[in-house]
Amino acid sequence: MKLTILGCYAATPRSLTNPTSQVLEIKNHLFLIDCGEGTQVELRRNKIKFSKIAHIFISHLHGDHFYGLIGLISTFNLLNREKELHVYGPKGIKQAIVFQLKISNSWTGYPLYFHELDSKEPQVLYEDKKVSVETIPLKHRIYVNGFLFKEKPGERKLNITAAQKNNIDVAYYQKIKNGSDIKLEDGTLIPNEKLTFDPPPPKSYAYCSDTVYKPDNAPQIMGATAMYHESTFLDAQKDLTKPTGHSTARQAGKMAREAQVDNLILGHYSTRYPDLTLFANEAKKEFDNVLLADDGVSFEF
Amino acid sequence: MKLTILGCYAATPRSLTNPTSQVLEIKNHLFLIDCGEGTQVELRRNKIKFSKIAHIFISHLHGDHFYGLIGLISTFNLLNREKELHVYGPKGIKQAIVFQLKISNSWTGYPLYFHELDSKEPQVLYEDKKVSVETIPLKHRIYVNGFLFKEKPGERKLNITAAQKNNIDVAYYQKIKNGSDIKLEDGTLIPNEKLTFDPPPPKSYAYCSDTVYKPDNAPQIMGATAMYHESTFLDAQKDLTKPTGHSTARQAGKMAREAQVDNLILGHYSTRYPDLTLFANEAKKEFDNVLLADDGVSFEF
Repeated sequence: MKLTILGCYAATPRSLTNPTSQVLEIKNHLFLIDCGEGTQVELRRNKIKFSKIAHIFISHLHGDHFYGLIGLISTFNLLNREKELHVYGPKGIKQAIVFQLKISNSWTGYPLYFHELDSKEPQVLYEDKKVSVETIPLKHRIYVNGFLFKEKPGERKLNITAAQKNNIDVAYYQKIKNGSDIKLEDGTLIPNEKLTFDPPPPKSYAYCSDTVYKPDNAPQIMGATAMYHESTFLDAQKDLTKPTGHSTARQAGKMAREAQVDNLILGHYSTRYPDLTLFANEAKKEFDNVLLADDGVSFEF
Repeated sequence: MKLTILGCYAATPRSLTNPTSQVLEIKNHLFLIDCGEGTQVELRRNKIKFSKIAHIFISHLHGDHFYGLIGLISTFNLLNREKELHVYGPKGIKQAIVFQLKISNSWTGYPLYFHELDSKEPQVLYEDKKVSVETIPLKHRIYVNGFLFKEKPGERKLNITAAQKNNIDVAYYQKIKNGSDIKLEDGTLIPNEKLTFDPPPPKSYAYCSDTVYKPDNAPQIMGATAMYHESTFLDAQKDLTKPTGHSTARQAGKMAREAQVDNLILGHYSTRYPDLTLFANEAKKEFDNVLLADDGVSFEF
């Protein structure tokens, strides 16, 4: 599982910092999460293949998470994309994009599907054999969802030594990895757990931005491999979190502790602060494994 | 008169090239012309003061001329702009912007005026004592206007020697510069042309992008100090100009010759070509004073 941060700064794009966008590589998918202005250029800079993106998840319709979407959709078209594209985001996203395509007298040559969201309960947006994506209800000044990306448990790992000791033919190995018990020729039944090891635990990634501190989400996120949680402010500006609908780094740390995640990734920094380590220092008062997102940085889990 | 090119490449933004946007400084105005994705970052890179921009002219609603507008308007708001902003562009531009502001539950704290265009005849969009701006009807795949920025003739230059020789009091100097004749105490009338020199000829700038070669615009542009004319293609791809609604560098050169402008600035280059000098070489077959636009380059006239 690999997360690449294309942009992780709050509010407006600037010469050296980008608004929110990130790419999650998980089980052979490339999921694009949020799409601030300039995202298509950052995708190029990070050498991410446009054609591999088939699903785009938009948390909310503030510009710093959304204004790059129309440009990316248009560029896909100019590049003669044929593969379908699915866009998940709040109600209104379809009209915003379609109207802009209409006034430019253009349409996409590839199938473009919008999945508009308005539920305040978690819902599954995408699912296949290996991975699922569900919404995490967040709270901000406007309707917003986080996203929880979960691997499904993989196949069991074959205990070769045990299989050979029991003279099991290789033809049965895939069956065993799928979880079957094996009946030997003499009628003995060997239970699957004697022939296999547990697979590596499935990984998961929780994306939470933009939001106030919302501890009632902890059970849904519980035990995630990594959680990206916005930390727009430091404690000194905690009074700003309520009117703006944002969190402090320390609140992100608390959330990580309560949801017992393995790693906390901080981001969505207000550009008023001179140094990102300030965010890490405050979050570490609540939680140990703190990582700092920054534009162009990747994390592998 | 100073023109700063923020972006001058066709189609999609890329790591090192920007879609169309430029700033014209003329008679203490900063006019923004077109606004492709990323324009606000290029304004910062070129150290152009956001607050000095009060008028934005959008030629047409293709993304590479327009997708940066919503972000710029939002950023003005985040920066607590109070000064009014006027946006001139094709019909539909208002709804595209307003709908995006609405779904983000935001509005501008400053007065924002849209001037929607649908005429195919030249019309004056802005005028004050020193400058005027009018549309230049262009022809592309969708409705499009170029823009002609014209200085008004300045006040006449005082011939100090002549004024002193005639013992004219300095109190009359401004009147003379405004064009008045002067009656001396002995009743002699001194005509203004004996007391003044002609002012420098007023400058003008014609912006023509995107368009096919359209020679019937030559009379309107006649004698302009500088004309920016799109040159998407080279002669080898001339057959593409008709279906795409673009011009070749050579056609831009012909247009410059026919409109007898002082300087031709080429831009809106297709990124298929390895070297901008190819464009200049072909345009120079028709016209001598060819300049090459490039991102971050300024021209003073």
